[in-house]
Amino acid sequence: MLGRLNHVAIAVPDLAAAVALYRTTLGVEPSDPQALPEHGVTVAFVDVGNTKIEFLEPLGEDSPILGFLANYPAGGMHHLCYEVEDIIAARDHLTEQGARILGDGEPKIGAHGKPVLFLHPKDFNGTLIELEQV
Amino acid sequence: MLGRLNHVAIAVPDLAAAVALYRTTLGVEPSDPQALPEHGVTVAFVDVGNTKIEFLEPLGEDSPILGFLANYPAGGMHHLCYEVEDIIAARDHLTEQGARILGDGEPKIGAHGKPVLFLHPKDFNGTLIELEQV
Repeated sequence: MLGRLNHVAIAVPDLAAAVALYRTTLGVEPSDPQALPEHGVTVAFVDVGNTKIEFLEPLGEDSPILGFLANYPAGGMHHLCYEVEDIIAARDHLTEQGARILGDGEPKIGAHGKPVLFLHPKDFNGTLIELEQV
Repeated sequence: MLGRLNHVAIAVPDLAAAVALYRTTLGVEPSDPQALPEHGVTVAFVDVGNTKIEFLEPLGEDSPILGFLANYPAGGMHHLCYEVEDIIAARDHLTEQGARILGDGEPKIGAHGKPVLFLHPKDFNGTLIELEQV
């Protein structure tokens, strides 16, 4: 069911600083930061050839990553996003297997304009998993 | 400098359980667990097409992931491994830029038989980064 790893998301307190750090020390070229107010984050991507690193900075008072950064003020790995062909079939299979879907269980349109779901990290060894239909 | 994302490592307290979970709920086929006593871990991989997920279970009393699992008993994302062409050139550039290399700064032969280095997570937004020369 799981397809390719679409991206690894890293929450950071200061996106401009993270972008500059990766550019200078790690020799990569992050994308320009993009504010996504409807998702409560500002994002930038690094394309490393086979997948992407997605930096997330909180945007607004209801940002979904504020809680994470309260626990990890310097930032940290936030989630892994895998591609799936059919997100409803994936959701139904996961639910049958006892895995919990975050929120109301219905796919939302994610930061890339595609349907996404998040799985409960307590059901997957502390790893927050995003599924994105591609 | 950074090349492809070679793998995402997830530390788990029970490798057999993690393998069974991913097989049953996420429909992937992890490799057979492999004990690597010289690295203090037992590993299994999931090939998701464009990169790999590496599960790490502690092996022995000096396992390098025991401290992580003491903090996160259910497991969690442990590190990201990127490929580099020349690990000594990468190391020297990183050191010049003020990033800290873990240990004595000399590459070790990693779990895949190739030279690796780890970068201090405090220098990279709480993300432990492994560099592997390919």
